[in-house]
Amino acid sequence: MSSSSTAPAAKPAMRDALVAAAFQLFLERGYEQTTVDDIVSLAGVGRRSFFRYFPSKEDVVFPDHEGCLADMTAFLAVSDPRHEPVRRVCDAARLVLRMYAENPTFSVQRYRLTKQVPGLRAYELSVVWRYERALADYLRGRFAGRRDGTLRADVIAAAVVAAHNNALRSWLRSDGEGDAGATVDHALRYVQEAFSTPAPDTGVGTDTDGTSAALFGGPTEHPDDVVVLVSRRDAPLWRVVQEIETAFGRA
Amino acid sequence: MSSSSTAPAAKPAMRDALVAAAFQLFLERGYEQTTVDDIVSLAGVGRRSFFRYFPSKEDVVFPDHEGCLADMTAFLAVSDPRHEPVRRVCDAARLVLRMYAENPTFSVQRYRLTKQVPGLRAYELSVVWRYERALADYLRGRFAGRRDGTLRADVIAAAVVAAHNNALRSWLRSDGEGDAGATVDHALRYVQEAFSTPAPDTGVGTDTDGTSAALFGGPTEHPDDVVVLVSRRDAPLWRVVQEIETAFGRA
Repeated sequence: MSSSSTAPAAKPAMRDALVAAAFQLFLERGYEQTTVDDIVSLAGVGRRSFFRYFPSKEDVVFPDHEGCLADMTAFLAVSDPRHEPVRRVCDAARLVLRMYAENPTFSVQRYRLTKQVPGLRAYELSVVWRYERALADYLRGRFAGRRDGTLRADVIAAAVVAAHNNALRSWLRSDGEGDAGATVDHALRYVQEAFSTPAPDTGVGTDTDGTSAALFGGPTEHPDDVVVLVSRRDAPLWRVVQEIETAFGRA
Repeated sequence: MSSSSTAPAAKPAMRDALVAAAFQLFLERGYEQTTVDDIVSLAGVGRRSFFRYFPSKEDVVFPDHEGCLADMTAFLAVSDPRHEPVRRVCDAARLVLRMYAENPTFSVQRYRLTKQVPGLRAYELSVVWRYERALADYLRGRFAGRRDGTLRADVIAAAVVAAHNNALRSWLRSDGEGDAGATVDHALRYVQEAFSTPAPDTGVGTDTDGTSAALFGGPTEHPDDVVVLVSRRDAPLWRVVQEIETAFGRA
């Protein structure tokens, strides 16, 4: 019993050996054609050892997600009010990216396997859902008391996950050759621009670009860098934003 | 064979009888404790009839999703370039809401059942994923050739689905008492404001409020209704949008 209580933290060799054996067989024979008995036989351990680490054959395909989800939850739990909430969930999503990027060969192999096996796709959807709930729960807490707080939390969490996964899949399709971090940063920036909220007055320094403190109302040294926008008050917001994007040269 | 080819369109009484029998038993005994044999016995038909309509016991819990997904795909397929893309996918999402709202009692019963049975939650995730893919595929087509087209498509589709589901769950938790349409409209408006793109120059009239044609540059009859915004060009977009929301009294 003592070994099972220390197993998750130590990530022992037996667990790694089971994952390695499983993937060797999945690649050689296919996922469906490989049994748990085949895996434990190749790894040289008993069935009970397998099920100590993995509740099912599906779980051995995603050996690091439970740990990553725990890391994400812990990361969000140590947030403080100075953290801009949308930026914070983007940073939390980067923990998932890091897990994939740490082992490109394994990640690409698993991506191909998952595309081929419908049961694994369903499993992956449930994993993604749990990440999304973790992000949404954090945002619900931050937006508590705000109008449409749960709506905003759910929508932003879904957008962050979709952006992350779009970038992750793009990197996996490149066989893990590209710069995973830069791809995900670009995707998450799109979501941040759409949804970010300002840092509260009591906090400082959550914006790394350092420009937000002097944005409005202050004198401008370079008149060419000032944009004047005139709009009817009843204009649809999307139209106004589009005009701004054009004026700012960002469209 | 001829009856099976006409079955989906006709939505015959036998199919409805199977759904009614299944839900009667699910509510009386629980989902796990009800077998397909129990269902066909109560409905007074044979096992083959059940499997003609439903591939599995899970499918009888969501009898209308296949039809709704087909409706959504058809709806998006008849889109034309004049449809503002984000508004179009919001309208497509409303087809799902309508399916739920047409039968509040059934929808609320199913919501409670799905919350209790993990297998049904997993099934529902796969259904939601298919709706999201349908919306994303449409948007990818509309955004083809645009910078970050697939990223925008995936993020917006996820945001629309999350907003729809946030509103839908809120309505289901109210036991189907509230105004489902108004709740979903409110949620989708939040996504539209964050992401909407303008109608192309060749199209007219995709905005039902009719204001967008005269928004910028034209004379205004009521100076009180004009907002003048001055901003530095290097301001973060989210900050500018936040100022606009405040100025427009929408924050």
